[in-house]
Amino acid sequence: MTNAEKALELSKELCGKLETVSKYKIKNREDLALAYTPGVAEPCKVIHANPEEAYNHTIKANTIAVVSDGSAVLGLGNIGPYAAMPVMEGKSILFKEFGDVNAFPICLDTQNTDEIIETVCRIAPAFGGINLEDISAPRCFEIEAKLKERLDIPVFHDDQHGTAIVVLAGVINALKVTGKTKENCKVVVNGAGSAGVAITKLLLLYGFANITMCDKFGILATDSEGLNWMQKEMVKVTNLSNEHGKLADALKGADVFVGVSAPNLVTEDMVKSMNKDAIIFAMANPTPE
Amino acid sequence: MTNAEKALELSKELCGKLETVSKYKIKNREDLALAYTPGVAEPCKVIHANPEEAYNHTIKANTIAVVSDGSAVLGLGNIGPYAAMPVMEGKSILFKEFGDVNAFPICLDTQNTDEIIETVCRIAPAFGGINLEDISAPRCFEIEAKLKERLDIPVFHDDQHGTAIVVLAGVINALKVTGKTKENCKVVVNGAGSAGVAITKLLLLYGFANITMCDKFGILATDSEGLNWMQKEMVKVTNLSNEHGKLADALKGADVFVGVSAPNLVTEDMVKSMNKDAIIFAMANPTPE
Repeated sequence: MTNAEKALELSKELCGKLETVSKYKIKNREDLALAYTPGVAEPCKVIHANPEEAYNHTIKANTIAVVSDGSAVLGLGNIGPYAAMPVMEGKSILFKEFGDVNAFPICLDTQNTDEIIETVCRIAPAFGGINLEDISAPRCFEIEAKLKERLDIPVFHDDQHGTAIVVLAGVINALKVTGKTKENCKVVVNGAGSAGVAITKLLLLYGFANITMCDKFGILATDSEGLNWMQKEMVKVTNLSNEHGKLADALKGADVFVGVSAPNLVTEDMVKSMNKDAIIFAMANPTPE
Repeated sequence: MTNAEKALELSKELCGKLETVSKYKIKNREDLALAYTPGVAEPCKVIHANPEEAYNHTIKANTIAVVSDGSAVLGLGNIGPYAAMPVMEGKSILFKEFGDVNAFPICLDTQNTDEIIETVCRIAPAFGGINLEDISAPRCFEIEAKLKERLDIPVFHDDQHGTAIVVLAGVINALKVTGKTKENCKVVVNGAGSAGVAITKLLLLYGFANITMCDKFGILATDSEGLNWMQKEMVKVTNLSNEHGKLADALKGADVFVGVSAPNLVTEDMVKSMNKDAIIFAMANPTPE
Protein backbone atom coordinates (compact mmCIF):
# COMPACT_ATOMS: atom_id res chain seq x y z
CA MET A 1 0.00 0.00 0.00
CA THR A 2 1.43 3.41 -0.94
CA ASN A 3 1.54 6.25 1.54
CA ALA A 4 -1.19 8.01 -0.44
CA GLU A 5 -3.43 4.95 -0.12
CA LYS A 6 -2.62 4.68 3.58
CA ALA A 7 -3.53 8.34 4.08
CA LEU A 8 -6.84 7.88 2.31
CA GLU A 9 -7.70 4.78 4.31
CA LEU A 10 -6.84 6.57 7.55
CA SER A 11 -9.02 9.50 6.56
CA LYS A 12 -11.98 7.24 5.85
CA GLU A 13 -11.48 5.24 9.03
CA LEU A 14 -11.35 8.36 11.20
CA CYS A 15 -14.19 10.08 9.33
CA GLY A 16 -12.75 13.44 10.24
CA LYS A 17 -9.71 13.98 12.42
CA LEU A 18 -11.28 16.13 15.10
CA GLU A 19 -13.86 15.71 17.80
CA THR A 20 -15.36 17.99 20.39
CA VAL A 21 -15.26 16.77 23.96
CA SER A 22 -16.87 17.98 27.16
CA LYS A 23 -14.51 19.10 29.91
CA TYR A 24 -17.22 18.25 32.43
CA LYS A 25 -18.79 14.82 32.74
CA ILE A 26 -22.50 15.01 33.46
CA LYS A 27 -23.29 12.13 35.78
CA ASN A 28 -26.52 13.26 37.41
CA ARG A 29 -29.18 15.95 37.53
CA GLU A 30 -27.12 18.17 39.83
CA ASP A 31 -24.24 18.19 37.34
CA LEU A 32 -26.69 19.14 34.62
CA ALA A 33 -28.06 22.00 36.72
CA LEU A 34 -24.53 23.38 37.14
CA ALA A 35 -23.19 22.82 33.62
CA TYR A 36 -26.41 23.77 31.89
CA THR A 37 -29.62 25.36 33.06
CA PRO A 38 -30.22 27.02 35.49
CA GLY A 39 -26.55 27.34 36.59
CA VAL A 40 -25.28 28.45 33.20
CA ALA A 41 -27.12 31.74 33.64
CA GLU A 42 -24.46 32.92 36.10
CA PRO A 43 -21.46 33.10 33.73
CA CYS A 44 -23.81 34.59 31.12
CA LYS A 45 -24.66 37.45 33.49
CA VAL A 46 -21.02 38.00 34.46
CA ILE A 47 -19.93 38.21 30.80
CA HIS A 48 -22.87 40.44 29.93
CA ALA A 49 -21.72 42.86 32.64
CA ASN A 50 -18.13 42.73 31.36
CA PRO A 51 -17.36 41.11 27.98
CA GLU A 52 -13.70 40.67 28.94
CA GLU A 53 -14.92 37.96 31.33
CA ALA A 54 -15.44 35.80 28.22
CA TYR A 55 -11.74 34.97 28.57
CA ASN A 56 -12.37 33.58 32.07
CA HIS A 57 -15.59 31.67 31.45
CA THR A 58 -15.63 30.47 27.83
CA ILE A 59 -13.50 28.61 25.33
CA LYS A 60 -12.51 31.96 23.80
CA ALA A 61 -9.59 31.74 26.24
CA ASN A 62 -7.87 28.98 24.29
CA THR A 63 -9.68 28.37 21.00
CA ILE A 64 -8.91 29.51 17.49
CA ALA A 65 -10.67 29.21 14.15
CA VAL A 66 -8.78 27.69 11.23
CA VAL A 67 -10.39 29.56 8.35
CA SER A 68 -10.13 28.80 4.64
CA ASP A 69 -12.13 29.40 1.50
CA GLY A 70 -10.43 26.50 -0.24
CA SER A 71 -9.00 28.75 -2.94
CA ALA A 72 -5.33 27.69 -2.67
CA VAL A 73 -5.14 24.37 -0.85
CA LEU A 74 -1.64 22.89 -0.65
CA GLY A 75 -0.43 22.80 -4.25
CA LEU A 76 -3.82 21.49 -5.37
CA GLY A 77 -5.18 24.93 -6.18
CA ASN A 78 -8.77 26.10 -5.91
CA ILE A 79 -10.55 22.94 -4.78
CA GLY A 80 -13.24 24.66 -2.72
CA PRO A 81 -14.34 24.54 0.93
CA TYR A 82 -15.49 20.91 1.11
CA ALA A 83 -12.26 19.50 -0.28
CA ALA A 84 -10.26 21.88 1.93
CA MET A 85 -11.74 20.40 5.10
CA PRO A 86 -9.18 17.57 5.57
CA VAL A 87 -6.37 20.15 5.60
CA MET A 88 -8.17 22.44 8.05
CA GLU A 89 -8.96 19.48 10.30
CA GLY A 90 -5.34 18.41 10.05
CA LYS A 91 -4.14 21.86 10.99
CA SER A 92 -6.60 21.91 13.88
CA ILE A 93 -5.17 18.68 15.32
CA LEU A 94 -1.62 20.02 14.95
CA PHE A 95 -2.62 23.04 17.05
CA LYS A 96 -3.99 20.74 19.73
CA GLU A 97 -1.32 18.03 19.67
CA PHE A 98 1.69 20.35 19.54
CA GLY A 99 0.40 23.57 21.10
CA ASP A 100 -2.49 22.45 23.34
CA VAL A 101 -4.64 25.07 21.63
CA ASN A 102 -8.23 24.13 20.77
CA ALA A 103 -8.85 24.75 17.09
CA PHE A 104 -11.88 24.33 14.88
CA PRO A 105 -12.04 24.28 11.07
CA ILE A 106 -14.24 26.86 9.37
CA CYS A 107 -14.45 26.29 5.62
CA LEU A 108 -16.27 29.11 3.88
CA ASP A 109 -18.73 28.69 1.06
CA THR A 110 -17.66 31.99 -0.49
CA GLN A 111 -14.49 33.26 -2.18
CA ASN A 112 -15.58 36.88 -2.21
CA THR A 113 -12.99 38.90 -0.29
CA ASP A 114 -15.49 41.19 1.46
CA GLU A 115 -17.81 38.32 2.34
CA ILE A 116 -14.93 36.39 3.87
CA ILE A 117 -13.94 39.39 5.99
CA GLU A 118 -17.56 39.96 7.09
CA THR A 119 -18.11 36.31 7.93
CA VAL A 120 -14.95 35.96 10.01
CA CYS A 121 -15.81 39.14 11.93
CA ARG A 122 -19.30 37.81 12.65
CA ILE A 123 -18.14 34.46 14.04
CA ALA A 124 -15.26 35.96 16.04
CA PRO A 125 -16.94 36.05 19.49
CA ALA A 126 -16.33 32.34 20.12
CA PHE A 127 -12.65 32.52 19.24
CA GLY A 128 -9.47 33.85 20.82
CA GLY A 129 -7.65 34.03 17.48
CA ILE A 130 -7.99 33.50 13.74
CA ASN A 131 -5.63 31.31 11.71
CA LEU A 132 -6.14 31.95 8.00
CA GLU A 133 -5.13 29.07 5.79
CA ASP A 134 -4.85 28.31 2.08
CA ILE A 135 -6.48 31.50 0.77
CA SER A 136 -5.12 32.52 -2.63
CA ALA A 137 -2.83 35.52 -3.15
CA PRO A 138 -3.17 38.46 -3.43
CA ARG A 139 -6.65 38.24 -1.79
CA CYS A 140 -5.10 36.79 1.36
CA PHE A 141 -3.10 39.98 1.97
CA GLU A 142 -6.18 42.17 1.95
CA ILE A 143 -8.23 39.72 4.03
CA GLU A 144 -5.51 39.48 6.67
CA ALA A 145 -4.96 43.25 6.81
CA LYS A 146 -8.66 44.12 7.11
CA LEU A 147 -9.31 41.44 9.74
CA LYS A 148 -6.41 42.76 11.80
CA GLU A 149 -7.95 46.22 11.58
CA ARG A 150 -11.44 45.12 12.59
CA LEU A 151 -10.88 42.38 15.16
CA ASP A 152 -9.51 42.63 18.69
CA ILE A 153 -8.02 39.11 18.56
CA PRO A 154 -4.81 37.98 16.82
CA VAL A 155 -5.04 37.17 13.10
CA PHE A 156 -2.35 34.95 11.63
CA HIS A 157 -2.02 33.82 8.02
CA ASP A 158 -0.20 30.55 8.26
CA ASP A 159 0.88 30.29 4.61
CA GLN A 160 2.60 33.63 4.99
CA HIS A 161 3.82 33.97 8.52
CA GLY A 162 4.15 30.33 9.55
CA THR A 163 6.14 29.48 6.45
CA ALA A 164 8.29 32.61 6.60
CA ILE A 165 9.26 32.04 10.23
CA VAL A 166 10.26 28.44 9.57
CA VAL A 167 12.29 29.41 6.50
CA LEU A 168 14.12 32.18 8.33
CA ALA A 169 14.96 29.83 11.20
CA GLY A 170 16.28 27.25 8.73
CA VAL A 171 18.26 29.81 6.75
CA ILE A 172 19.89 31.22 9.89
CA ASN A 173 21.16 27.74 10.75
CA ALA A 174 22.24 27.08 7.16
CA LEU A 175 24.31 30.28 7.23
CA LYS A 176 26.09 29.01 10.34
CA VAL A 177 26.82 25.66 8.69
CA THR A 178 28.10 27.15 5.44
CA GLY A 179 29.78 30.23 6.87
CA LYS A 180 27.91 32.48 4.44
CA THR A 181 26.67 35.91 5.54
CA LYS A 182 23.25 37.36 4.91
CA GLU A 183 24.69 40.52 3.38
CA ASN A 184 26.58 38.61 0.70
CA CYS A 185 24.08 35.89 -0.21
CA LYS A 186 22.19 35.90 -3.46
CA VAL A 187 18.75 34.48 -2.62
CA VAL A 188 16.19 33.16 -5.09
CA VAL A 189 12.59 32.62 -3.96
CA ASN A 190 10.53 30.64 -6.47
CA GLY A 191 6.77 31.17 -6.11
CA ALA A 192 5.38 34.68 -5.72
CA GLY A 193 2.22 33.72 -3.85
CA SER A 194 1.47 34.21 -0.18
CA ALA A 195 4.37 32.09 1.09
CA GLY A 196 6.96 33.49 -1.33
CA VAL A 197 5.98 37.06 -0.63
CA ALA A 198 6.06 36.64 3.15
CA ILE A 199 9.35 34.73 3.10
CA THR A 200 10.94 37.45 0.97
CA LYS A 201 9.65 40.20 3.23
CA LEU A 202 10.98 38.47 6.35
CA LEU A 203 14.40 37.70 4.79
CA LEU A 204 14.70 41.35 3.71
CA LEU A 205 13.73 42.47 7.20
CA TYR A 206 16.35 40.15 8.67
CA GLY A 207 19.02 41.75 6.51
CA PHE A 208 19.36 39.78 3.28
CA ALA A 209 20.27 42.37 0.69
CA ASN A 210 19.91 40.53 -2.61
CA ILE A 211 16.73 38.57 -3.25
CA THR A 212 15.21 37.63 -6.60
CA MET A 213 11.66 36.35 -6.83
CA CYS A 214 10.46 34.07 -9.62
CA ASP A 215 7.05 32.82 -10.63
CA LYS A 216 5.73 30.63 -13.47
CA PHE A 217 6.85 33.11 -16.12
CA GLY A 218 10.33 33.65 -14.65
CA ILE A 219 12.05 36.46 -12.79
CA LEU A 220 9.80 39.21 -11.39
CA ALA A 221 11.03 42.46 -12.95
CA THR A 222 9.68 46.00 -13.29
CA ASP A 223 8.38 45.31 -16.81
CA SER A 224 6.93 41.82 -16.10
CA GLU A 225 3.39 41.52 -17.35
CA GLY A 226 0.44 40.30 -15.28
CA LEU A 227 1.88 41.01 -11.84
CA ASN A 228 -0.69 41.52 -9.09
CA TRP A 229 -0.45 44.55 -6.85
CA MET A 230 1.55 42.75 -4.17
CA GLN A 231 4.01 41.35 -6.71
CA LYS A 232 4.50 44.88 -8.06
CA GLU A 233 5.28 46.03 -4.52
CA MET A 234 7.80 43.22 -4.17
CA VAL A 235 9.60 44.14 -7.40
CA LYS A 236 10.38 47.52 -5.83
CA VAL A 237 12.51 45.83 -3.13
CA THR A 238 13.83 42.76 -4.95
CA ASN A 239 15.77 42.07 -8.18
CA LEU A 240 17.71 45.29 -7.63
CA SER A 241 19.98 44.58 -10.60
CA ASN A 242 16.86 44.32 -12.79
CA GLU A 243 17.66 40.85 -14.13
CA HIS A 244 15.40 39.26 -16.71
CA GLY A 245 14.97 35.60 -17.57
CA LYS A 246 13.77 32.27 -16.28
CA LEU A 247 14.30 30.52 -12.96
CA ALA A 248 17.43 28.90 -14.44
CA ASP A 249 18.91 32.34 -15.07
CA ALA A 250 18.12 33.52 -11.58
CA LEU A 251 19.76 30.47 -10.02
CA LYS A 252 23.16 31.03 -11.65
CA GLY A 253 25.51 31.97 -8.86
CA ALA A 254 22.75 31.98 -6.25
CA ASP A 255 23.55 30.98 -2.66
CA VAL A 256 20.08 30.24 -1.35
CA PHE A 257 17.07 28.74 -3.12
CA VAL A 258 13.62 28.66 -1.51
CA GLY A 259 11.01 26.71 -3.51
CA VAL A 260 7.38 27.39 -2.60
CA SER A 261 5.87 26.82 -6.01
CA ALA A 262 5.39 23.46 -7.78
CA PRO A 263 7.46 20.25 -7.89
CA ASN A 264 9.99 19.25 -10.60
CA LEU A 265 11.04 22.75 -11.60
CA VAL A 266 14.66 22.69 -10.47
CA THR A 267 17.03 20.45 -12.44
CA GLU A 268 20.38 18.99 -11.45
CA ASP A 269 22.06 21.43 -13.84
CA MET A 270 20.37 24.38 -12.20
CA VAL A 271 21.64 23.26 -8.80
CA LYS A 272 25.12 22.84 -10.24
CA SER A 273 24.95 26.42 -11.57
CA MET A 274 24.46 27.75 -8.04
CA ASN A 275 27.27 29.05 -5.86
CA LYS A 276 29.42 26.70 -3.74
CA ASP A 277 27.67 25.37 -0.60
CA ALA A 278 24.27 26.20 -2.02
CA ILE A 279 21.43 26.27 0.52
CA ILE A 280 18.27 24.67 -0.90
CA PHE A 281 14.83 24.62 0.72
CA ALA A 282 12.56 22.48 -1.47
CA MET A 283 9.18 23.28 0.11
CA ALA A 284 6.53 22.88 -2.60
CA ASN A 285 3.50 21.34 -0.90
CA PRO A 286 2.25 18.58 -0.92
CA THR A 287 5.01 17.38 -3.30
CA PRO A 288 8.44 18.90 -2.57
CA GLU A 289 10.57 19.36 -5.64
CA MET B 1 -22.19 28.18 48.64
CA THR B 2 -25.36 28.61 46.58
CA ASN B 3 -25.90 26.69 43.36
CA ALA B 4 -25.46 29.91 41.41
CA GLU B 5 -22.07 30.45 43.06
CA LYS B 6 -21.12 26.84 42.43
CA ALA B 7 -22.06 27.21 38.76
CA LEU B 8 -19.96 30.34 38.41
CA GLU B 9 -16.98 28.74 40.12
CA LEU B 10 -17.26 25.69 37.86
CA SER B 11 -17.42 27.90 34.80
CA LYS B 12 -14.28 29.78 35.81
CA GLU B 13 -12.43 26.61 36.71
CA LEU B 14 -13.24 24.95 33.37
CA CYS B 15 -12.64 28.16 31.38
CA GLY B 16 -15.07 26.96 28.75
CA LYS B 17 -16.85 23.61 28.78
CA LEU B 18 -15.63 22.29 25.46
CA GLU B 19 -12.37 21.22 23.95
CA THR B 20 -11.34 19.94 20.55
CA VAL B 21 -9.40 16.70 20.50
CA SER B 22 -7.51 14.87 17.78
CA LYS B 23 -8.81 11.42 16.87
CA TYR B 24 -5.30 10.54 15.75
CA LYS B 25 -2.25 10.72 17.97
CA ILE B 26 0.82 11.96 16.12
CA LYS B 27 3.77 10.08 17.55
CA ASN B 28 6.34 10.41 14.78
CA ARG B 29 7.11 11.88 11.39
CA GLU B 30 5.32 9.09 9.52
CA ASP B 31 2.09 9.80 11.44
CA LEU B 32 2.46 13.45 10.54
CA ALA B 33 2.90 12.61 6.86
CA LEU B 34 -0.35 10.62 6.93
CA ALA B 35 -2.48 12.92 9.06
CA TYR B 36 -1.15 16.13 7.55
CA THR B 37 1.02 16.85 4.53
CA PRO B 38 1.60 15.21 2.10
CA GLY B 39 -0.97 12.47 2.89
CA VAL B 40 -3.84 14.85 3.53
CA ALA B 41 -3.87 15.72 -0.16
CA GLU B 42 -5.56 12.37 -0.94
CA PRO B 43 -8.89 12.92 0.85
CA CYS B 44 -8.84 16.49 -0.52
CA LYS B 45 -8.69 15.15 -4.08
CA VAL B 46 -11.39 12.56 -3.43
CA ILE B 47 -13.78 15.17 -2.02
CA HIS B 48 -12.97 17.61 -4.81
CA ALA B 49 -14.00 14.93 -7.32
CA ASN B 50 -17.21 14.23 -5.38
CA PRO B 51 -18.33 16.61 -2.60
CA GLU B 52 -20.57 13.90 -1.09
CA GLU B 53 -17.34 12.18 0.00
CA ALA B 54 -17.08 14.92 2.65
CA TYR B 55 -19.39 12.70 4.71
CA ASN B 56 -16.83 9.87 4.54
CA HIS B 57 -13.64 11.82 5.12
CA THR B 58 -14.43 14.85 7.29
CA ILE B 59 -16.14 15.77 10.55
CA LYS B 60 -19.16 16.91 8.53
CA ALA B 61 -20.35 13.33 9.08
CA ASN B 62 -21.06 13.89 12.76
CA THR B 63 -20.65 17.56 13.65
CA ILE B 64 -23.20 20.33 14.08
CA ALA B 65 -23.00 24.05 14.73
CA VAL B 66 -24.84 25.48 17.72
CA VAL B 67 -25.65 28.94 16.41
CA SER B 68 -26.93 31.94 18.35
CA ASP B 69 -26.91 35.71 18.04
CA GLY B 70 -27.45 36.08 21.78
CA SER B 71 -30.74 37.91 21.28
CA ALA B 72 -32.94 35.76 23.55
CA VAL B 73 -30.71 33.79 25.89
CA LEU B 74 -32.61 31.73 28.48
CA GLY B 75 -34.91 34.20 30.21
CA LEU B 76 -32.07 36.74 30.36
CA GLY B 77 -33.03 38.44 27.10
CA ASN B 78 -30.76 40.11 24.59
CA ILE B 79 -27.38 39.71 26.27
CA GLY B 80 -25.34 39.44 23.05
CA PRO B 81 -23.01 36.83 21.56
CA TYR B 82 -20.25 36.90 24.18
CA ALA B 83 -22.59 36.35 27.11
CA ALA B 84 -24.45 33.69 25.13
CA MET B 85 -21.33 31.55 24.80
CA PRO B 86 -21.71 29.61 28.09
CA VAL B 87 -25.15 28.43 26.98
CA MET B 88 -23.96 27.42 23.51
CA GLU B 89 -20.99 25.60 25.01
CA GLY B 90 -23.35 23.89 27.45
CA LYS B 91 -25.63 22.83 24.64
CA SER B 92 -22.61 21.56 22.70
CA ILE B 93 -21.55 19.32 25.58
CA LEU B 94 -25.10 17.99 25.93
CA PHE B 95 -25.02 16.95 22.28
CA LYS B 96 -21.76 15.11 22.85
CA GLU B 97 -22.49 13.60 26.25
CA PHE B 98 -26.02 12.41 25.50
CA GLY B 99 -26.03 11.99 21.71
CA ASP B 100 -22.35 11.41 20.81
CA VAL B 101 -22.67 14.20 18.27
CA ASN B 102 -19.77 16.66 17.94
CA ALA B 103 -21.04 20.19 18.35
CA PHE B 104 -19.34 23.56 18.21
CA PRO B 105 -20.69 26.93 19.42
CA ILE B 106 -20.94 29.73 16.88
CA CYS B 107 -21.95 33.01 18.50
CA LEU B 108 -22.63 35.67 15.91
CA ASP B 109 -21.63 39.29 16.21
CA THR B 110 -24.71 40.42 14.28
CA GLN B 111 -28.44 40.41 14.99
CA ASN B 112 -29.42 41.32 11.45
CA THR B 113 -31.68 38.58 10.10
CA ASP B 114 -30.22 38.51 6.58
CA GLU B 115 -26.64 38.64 7.86
CA ILE B 116 -27.30 35.70 10.18
CA ILE B 117 -28.73 33.68 7.28
CA GLU B 118 -25.79 34.57 5.02
CA THR B 119 -23.22 33.78 7.68
CA VAL B 120 -24.66 30.39 8.55
CA CYS B 121 -24.84 29.44 4.86
CA ARG B 122 -21.21 30.46 4.41
CA ILE B 123 -19.88 28.37 7.31
CA ALA B 124 -22.07 25.34 6.50
CA PRO B 125 -19.45 23.22 4.63
CA ALA B 126 -17.83 22.03 7.88
CA PHE B 127 -21.12 20.96 9.45
CA GLY B 128 -23.63 18.14 9.06
CA GLY B 129 -26.44 20.12 10.70
CA ILE B 130 -27.37 23.47 12.21
CA ASN B 131 -28.89 23.85 15.69
CA LEU B 132 -30.27 27.36 16.13
CA GLU B 133 -30.47 28.51 19.71
CA ASP B 134 -31.76 31.49 21.66
CA ILE B 135 -32.60 33.72 18.71
CA SER B 136 -35.47 36.08 19.45
CA ALA B 137 -38.96 35.70 17.96
CA PRO B 138 -40.27 36.36 15.38
CA ARG B 139 -36.83 36.66 13.66
CA CYS B 140 -36.08 33.03 14.50
CA PHE B 141 -39.00 31.81 12.37
CA GLU B 142 -37.70 33.56 9.26
CA ILE B 143 -34.08 32.56 9.89
CA GLU B 144 -35.03 28.91 10.32
CA ALA B 145 -37.29 28.87 7.23
CA LYS B 146 -34.74 30.53 4.94
CA LEU B 147 -31.87 28.35 6.14
CA LYS B 148 -33.98 25.23 5.48
CA GLU B 149 -34.59 26.52 1.97
CA ARG B 150 -30.96 27.29 1.24
CA LEU B 151 -29.01 24.53 2.97
CA ASP B 152 -28.83 20.82 2.16
CA ILE B 153 -28.25 19.87 5.82
CA PRO B 154 -30.85 19.66 8.62
CA VAL B 155 -31.72 22.91 10.42
CA PHE B 156 -33.30 22.64 13.87
CA HIS B 157 -34.37 25.49 16.13
CA ASP B 158 -34.06 24.06 19.59
CA ASP B 159 -36.17 26.64 21.42
CA GLN B 160 -39.04 25.79 19.11
CA HIS B 161 -38.78 22.16 18.17
CA GLY B 162 -36.81 20.77 21.09
CA THR B 163 -39.11 22.39 23.62
CA ALA B 164 -42.29 21.50 21.74
CA ILE B 165 -41.35 17.82 21.46
CA VAL B 166 -40.57 17.57 25.16
CA VAL B 167 -43.80 19.32 26.13
CA LEU B 168 -45.93 17.10 23.89
CA ALA B 169 -44.30 13.97 25.33
CA GLY B 170 -44.95 15.20 28.86
CA VAL B 171 -48.52 16.21 28.10
CA ILE B 172 -49.31 12.82 26.52
CA ASN B 173 -48.20 11.13 29.72
CA ALA B 174 -50.08 13.61 31.90
CA LEU B 175 -53.28 12.86 29.97
CA LYS B 176 -52.83 9.16 30.77
CA VAL B 177 -52.32 9.90 34.44
CA THR B 178 -55.32 12.22 34.75
CA GLY B 179 -57.61 10.46 32.30
CA LYS B 180 -58.22 13.69 30.41
CA THR B 181 -58.58 13.71 26.62
CA LYS B 182 -56.91 16.08 24.23
CA GLU B 183 -60.20 17.03 22.58
CA ASN B 184 -61.74 18.22 25.86
CA CYS B 185 -58.78 19.94 27.47
CA LYS B 186 -58.56 23.69 27.77
CA VAL B 187 -54.86 24.51 27.33
CA VAL B 188 -53.15 27.77 28.25
CA VAL B 189 -49.67 28.52 26.92
CA ASN B 190 -48.03 31.51 28.59
CA GLY B 191 -45.27 33.10 26.53
CA ALA B 192 -45.81 33.80 22.83
CA GLY B 193 -42.17 33.62 21.77
CA SER B 194 -40.44 30.87 19.84
CA ALA B 195 -41.11 28.15 22.43
CA GLY B 196 -44.74 29.10 23.06
CA VAL B 197 -45.53 29.32 19.36
CA ALA B 198 -43.92 25.98 18.52
CA ILE B 199 -45.54 24.23 21.51
CA THR B 200 -48.94 25.56 20.50
CA LYS B 201 -48.47 24.49 16.89
CA LEU B 202 -47.42 20.98 17.90
CA LEU B 203 -50.27 20.57 20.42
CA LEU B 204 -52.75 21.71 17.76
CA LEU B 205 -51.26 19.28 15.28
CA TYR B 206 -51.52 16.49 17.85
CA GLY B 207 -55.23 17.18 18.24
CA PHE B 208 -55.73 19.62 21.12
CA ALA B 209 -58.73 21.69 20.09
CA ASN B 210 -58.80 24.51 22.59
CA ILE B 211 -55.60 26.46 23.22
CA THR B 212 -55.23 30.00 24.51
CA MET B 213 -51.94 31.82 24.28
CA CYS B 214 -50.92 34.59 26.65
CA ASP B 215 -48.05 37.04 26.68
CA LYS B 216 -47.01 39.92 28.94
CA PHE B 217 -50.15 41.91 28.13
CA GLY B 218 -52.51 38.97 28.60
CA ILE B 219 -54.58 36.80 26.26
CA LEU B 220 -53.69 36.96 22.54
CA ALA B 221 -56.90 38.03 20.76
CA THR B 222 -57.74 39.35 17.31
CA ASP B 223 -57.73 42.93 18.52
CA SER B 224 -54.59 42.71 20.70
CA GLU B 225 -52.17 45.50 19.94
CA GLY B 226 -48.48 45.04 19.14
CA LEU B 227 -48.65 41.42 17.99
CA ASN B 228 -45.87 40.37 15.64
CA TRP B 229 -46.72 38.61 12.38
CA MET B 230 -46.33 35.15 13.85
CA GLN B 231 -48.50 35.98 16.88
CA LYS B 232 -51.19 37.25 14.48
CA GLU B 233 -51.00 33.92 12.66
CA MET B 234 -51.39 32.10 15.98
CA VAL B 235 -54.49 34.09 16.96
CA LYS B 236 -56.22 32.68 13.86
CA VAL B 237 -55.96 29.13 15.27
CA THR B 238 -56.13 29.76 19.04
CA ASN B 239 -58.50 31.52 21.45
CA LEU B 240 -61.43 30.40 19.28
CA SER B 241 -63.97 31.78 21.78
CA ASN B 242 -62.28 35.18 21.46
CA GLU B 243 -61.64 35.60 25.18
CA HIS B 244 -60.08 38.81 26.47
CA GLY B 245 -58.23 39.41 29.71
CA LYS B 246 -55.14 38.56 31.68
CA LEU B 247 -53.39 35.24 32.30
CA ALA B 248 -55.57 34.83 35.41
CA ASP B 249 -58.71 34.98 33.28
CA ALA B 250 -57.32 32.45 30.80
CA LEU B 251 -56.46 30.00 33.57
CA LYS B 252 -60.01 29.81 34.98
CA GLY B 253 -61.26 26.32 34.18
CA ALA B 254 -58.09 25.42 32.25
CA ASP B 255 -56.81 21.82 32.27
CA VAL B 256 -53.27 22.35 31.09
CA PHE B 257 -50.85 25.20 31.75
CA VAL B 258 -47.53 25.50 29.93
CA GLY B 259 -45.31 28.31 31.19
CA VAL B 260 -42.50 29.40 28.88
CA SER B 261 -42.34 33.04 29.87
CA ALA B 262 -40.98 34.49 33.12
CA PRO B 263 -41.02 33.24 36.73
CA ASN B 264 -43.49 34.23 39.48
CA LEU B 265 -46.46 34.91 37.21
CA VAL B 266 -48.78 32.13 38.34
CA THR B 267 -50.22 32.47 41.86
CA GLU B 268 -51.71 29.82 44.12
CA ASP B 269 -55.16 31.29 43.48
CA MET B 270 -54.72 30.99 39.75
CA VAL B 271 -53.84 27.32 40.09
CA LYS B 272 -56.88 26.83 42.31
CA SER B 273 -59.05 28.39 39.62
CA MET B 274 -57.98 25.72 37.13
CA ASN B 275 -59.97 22.57 36.44
CA LYS B 276 -59.63 19.46 38.61
CA ASP B 277 -56.39 17.48 38.05
CA ALA B 278 -54.74 20.45 36.44
CA ILE B 279 -51.61 19.67 34.43
CA ILE B 280 -48.90 22.29 35.00
CA PHE B 281 -45.58 22.58 33.13
CA ALA B 282 -43.61 25.38 34.77
CA MET B 283 -40.79 25.77 32.24
CA ALA B 284 -39.62 29.37 32.39
CA ASN B 285 -35.85 29.28 31.96
CA PRO B 286 -33.50 29.62 33.83
CA THR B 287 -35.93 30.20 36.73
CA PRO B 288 -39.07 28.01 36.54
CA GLU B 289 -42.16 29.62 38.01
